[in-house]
Amino acid sequence: MRGKKLENNQTKSTSEVKKRFFRRNEKTANDGQGTRKKQAYPKSNFIPKQKKEQRRTPVKIIPLGGLNEIGKNMTVIECSNDIFIIDCGLAFPDTEMPGVDIVIPDFSYIEKNRDKVRGIVLTHGHEDHIGGLAYLLKKINVPIYGTKLTLALVDGKLKEHGLSGKVNLIVTEPRRTIKMGCMAVEFIKVNHSIPDAVGMAIHTPAGVIVHTGDFKVDYSPINGEIIDLARFGELGSKGVLALMADSTNAERPGYTQSEKTVGESFEKLFAQGEGKRIIIATFSSNIHRIQQIINCSSRYGRKVAVFGRSMINVITTAIELGYLDVPKGVLIDIDMMSRYDASEIVLITTGSQGEPMSALTRMAMNDHKKVNITPMDFIIISATPIPGNEKYVTKVVNELMKSGAEVVYEAMYEVHVSGHACREELKLIQALTKPKFFIPVHGEYKHLKKHAEIARELGMPQENIIIGEIGNVIETDGTKINVVSQVPAGKVLVDGLGVGDVGSIVLRDRKHLAQDGLIIVVIGIEKASNTIVSGPDIISRGFVYVRESEELIDNAKAVLEHTLETCHAQDFREWNYLKTRMRDALSDYIYEKTKRSPMILPIIMEI
Amino acid sequence: MRGKKLENNQTKSTSEVKKRFFRRNEKTANDGQGTRKKQAYPKSNFIPKQKKEQRRTPVKIIPLGGLNEIGKNMTVIECSNDIFIIDCGLAFPDTEMPGVDIVIPDFSYIEKNRDKVRGIVLTHGHEDHIGGLAYLLKKINVPIYGTKLTLALVDGKLKEHGLSGKVNLIVTEPRRTIKMGCMAVEFIKVNHSIPDAVGMAIHTPAGVIVHTGDFKVDYSPINGEIIDLARFGELGSKGVLALMADSTNAERPGYTQSEKTVGESFEKLFAQGEGKRIIIATFSSNIHRIQQIINCSSRYGRKVAVFGRSMINVITTAIELGYLDVPKGVLIDIDMMSRYDASEIVLITTGSQGEPMSALTRMAMNDHKKVNITPMDFIIISATPIPGNEKYVTKVVNELMKSGAEVVYEAMYEVHVSGHACREELKLIQALTKPKFFIPVHGEYKHLKKHAEIARELGMPQENIIIGEIGNVIETDGTKINVVSQVPAGKVLVDGLGVGDVGSIVLRDRKHLAQDGLIIVVIGIEKASNTIVSGPDIISRGFVYVRESEELIDNAKAVLEHTLETCHAQDFREWNYLKTRMRDALSDYIYEKTKRSPMILPIIMEI
Repeated sequence: MRGKKLENNQTKSTSEVKKRFFRRNEKTANDGQGTRKKQAYPKSNFIPKQKKEQRRTPVKIIPLGGLNEIGKNMTVIECSNDIFIIDCGLAFPDTEMPGVDIVIPDFSYIEKNRDKVRGIVLTHGHEDHIGGLAYLLKKINVPIYGTKLTLALVDGKLKEHGLSGKVNLIVTEPRRTIKMGCMAVEFIKVNHSIPDAVGMAIHTPAGVIVHTGDFKVDYSPINGEIIDLARFGELGSKGVLALMADSTNAERPGYTQSEKTVGESFEKLFAQGEGKRIIIATFSSNIHRIQQIINCSSRYGRKVAVFGRSMINVITTAIELGYLDVPKGVLIDIDMMSRYDASEIVLITTGSQGEPMSALTRMAMNDHKKVNITPMDFIIISATPIPGNEKYVTKVVNELMKSGAEVVYEAMYEVHVSGHACREELKLIQALTKPKFFIPVHGEYKHLKKHAEIARELGMPQENIIIGEIGNVIETDGTKINVVSQVPAGKVLVDGLGVGDVGSIVLRDRKHLAQDGLIIVVIGIEKASNTIVSGPDIISRGFVYVRESEELIDNAKAVLEHTLETCHAQDFREWNYLKTRMRDALSDYIYEKTKRSPMILPIIMEI
Repeated sequence: MRGKKLENNQTKSTSEVKKRFFRRNEKTANDGQGTRKKQAYPKSNFIPKQKKEQRRTPVKIIPLGGLNEIGKNMTVIECSNDIFIIDCGLAFPDTEMPGVDIVIPDFSYIEKNRDKVRGIVLTHGHEDHIGGLAYLLKKINVPIYGTKLTLALVDGKLKEHGLSGKVNLIVTEPRRTIKMGCMAVEFIKVNHSIPDAVGMAIHTPAGVIVHTGDFKVDYSPINGEIIDLARFGELGSKGVLALMADSTNAERPGYTQSEKTVGESFEKLFAQGEGKRIIIATFSSNIHRIQQIINCSSRYGRKVAVFGRSMINVITTAIELGYLDVPKGVLIDIDMMSRYDASEIVLITTGSQGEPMSALTRMAMNDHKKVNITPMDFIIISATPIPGNEKYVTKVVNELMKSGAEVVYEAMYEVHVSGHACREELKLIQALTKPKFFIPVHGEYKHLKKHAEIARELGMPQENIIIGEIGNVIETDGTKINVVSQVPAGKVLVDGLGVGDVGSIVLRDRKHLAQDGLIIVVIGIEKASNTIVSGPDIISRGFVYVRESEELIDNAKAVLEHTLETCHAQDFREWNYLKTRMRDALSDYIYEKTKRSPMILPIIMEI
């Protein structure tokens, strides 16, 4: 069966697939690799001292994103002739990438091995896990497996890219297993800041690999569905070869608080905001948070209006799919707001990160058509600024306050909890799964390192822990784990319609232009007579305000004229020489006078 | 005496100056403003119900920086014909100001009133309080009053600007008073993250104004000098007209921890780092922190080497002036390090904010000549990232960890405490000074608002609180307080040697260039024949990688040629028309193909 093409729609119950899987597994073992026990997994292999360790068909784990970075999570799992992909996310550009819209992984390894790819499995519907999918699907069209809400959100993205209906989206659910060639992927419920998030148990010939996805442990989740700790324990009991776990909060001690604590804060704040209009900004994908806002509004007899394109889209989808339970008559259209008193209304809006074009930011800047902020507003920002967004959020808070509104933000109240596990939860997952090997994922190096230290503290030997890099081919045959080679991996920048056409040279130029601007020098040379017939003229942008710096520009022109005179002995057809001389002379002069180094572009026109 | 020119070096003991001040004050009162009591200050005026409120010579408080922003703190105090200035700081540019080095206040109000200015008084030696001085002194040369360390740091700055020796720096100390025309400034010891910080009591004909400067309450400061709460209380008891207090931490509940807690953490960490080289990064101006590092090193028998220009400068100055007590033989030259085992050494370095050119960053990037990071390094980053620097610090931490070093940073240990008062300390200052009016200073709007709420909670009427803006002229005659007018105020951008020559147009161009780069179109037109004799040629920078986008550029050229043909009926001497047509045609084409909007610069050469 090995290497056989994937049959789609093969969502079966765990036990059924497992039966077939183990049968094949035994066959594999008989395929020339010596005898195997019928039980494919050792009873316990945490800090294992197995009597007889046996090498098995090796499996390769190839992270293409999410290690040593925040975002663009993507991992390739490869065994024999089969490949499948876990997640395909985007990252947001940092200040070193001006003008770039988003960053996606380098797909070249996947393109090169397109025939082996059996499918893509998704852990949940956040951008850093699904935002790169549309770009990958334009290169290879393979089936995508995910939970109902995750795929609904994917479908929204595909529509934007004109791909809707062209891709095979296959809904699955926790405790179900998908065959991926010689491997199988079992979905396991986890808690996170979006519903329908799953971790995975990857059943391979070499053993079981557990991938947590983004997760936290919430004993009082809003939908009542606690992370399936029992299944993690069962897998651990039977034997887990390797664990890949979310490192985002590996620096934070203790436990992440339950989403329910936010609801309790809302209760208090709704009482505090009595008589005022309440405006709450949060992430559109945090449907549990939105559920709590709706519950609270309903209890306080308030109507809810929804603002912001993504908020409206996600809420509509969530209601349709049954993820959001809205009592009849609670949601009202924006245009119906005027029929109610301000004290009877709650607005849910995007903009919790201070995004410049978001609804909340426009309200703050007095730039929203339907909402005018006054002292009669009570505003709750139910989110923490993502690193890099602090200044935007602060600006929005300041502006809202200047309009007289009361603003509650995270610094002072429990209006947000993280979606990621803290250190004690990370220990819990280690203790439940008792893995032989550990690969911390999802985080910068400092997070991965802290997470690795947790495994060390719990007794795992150093050599069983891999702090990887993207592009690493991490191979394990069940007895050892090693980085055996490297595949292409990196950042592909998306700017407008261009994917990958903004590289290091373009970025360097953009940064240079942003720092000190630009000076263009133009001269016209008559070919026949070998003489300068026009210029030098100087044009600048982003350098100085020219009208107030005429003297500087006039002197710069004189410097250039002098330089061209000294070049006169030279053949004016040696353009590169001429350009270099002009650039150097102007650059020296400008730096001396201003201590700035604008980009200097000499242009020679041939007549 | 009013309007009389300032006699320099008039640092007298409080009582002496006060005597003269009151005498003059009485005279002023007799100058046509009715009778006055001999005691110029009411006994108590907190929520005052004075029997007979009397209008007095009004005093103006004009903040030129530090309100609705972090940094560039500067306040003008004006009464009759006298002006003095409290602090003159800089701010650091945000992402909306590419290429800008620093931001300073707009000095035009001071230049316009240069004859009235009696001097500048400084609260402490941080950049956001003294960093703009050199620029102001180039416009007006007035005496500067400050404590010993503050003026030593100022002198260092003046040297860089070639102003050293040209400015009258007058050392004063807490509990001393300086005459400023019809006013007098009394210095009051406060605690902060730099030694020798002071607040001020400003004695004016209208009453006493207390300005805290940056402060915290530290009951166990490293030099033993606790904030002079007694003097604040004494002033409050006699009657304070207005309080201006530091709002930086007005969002934070409780008390700021003592600097001593950092020393206790160092003790534990030195034990933990035994056998390794210890590297500690912190702010060079935090001399108490450096004292604790030196104490700890000495106790553990380690030698200390100092890295980073500003760190070396400040430590040298602090030792010379007696602010740093270094046991003999503890400090060693960098070049002597090789004589000791790594476990016998501590390095103190700049770079706690991840500044790209700092010593620590260069160490992290394997780019430091003298220090190579290895697993034998134990590194402590003793600072919190200033908002906006988080990503730089994270990058440095990641790189240091990748070299195998152990890195301790604030997220996990108490290796830093704030230099600013939290909410309970702010209440303490309110309760001690019992001001009639309150003006929160030093902070964004949200901080000022929170600080104002504290005063309200303590019972101050809303109308007695002014949340001001820079440029506001806040006037009080002792009975009421109001914003009466506005003077010019804003941000002056310093880029290289240019002060103020980078304005909104230059910044807009820089941001545009950074977003999508630049396309230059050049054509040559022969004047006589009114024909195009050269071009259109296209040059781009920061747009696409041209070698991989030849088709796009070729097509763009074709679009331009077509446009020029359709313009042929027109007179080619109408350059603006031609330029607009080319810009529009190219812009449309490029946007359609790439969804980007580079800056388009058409250049016409006349032959």
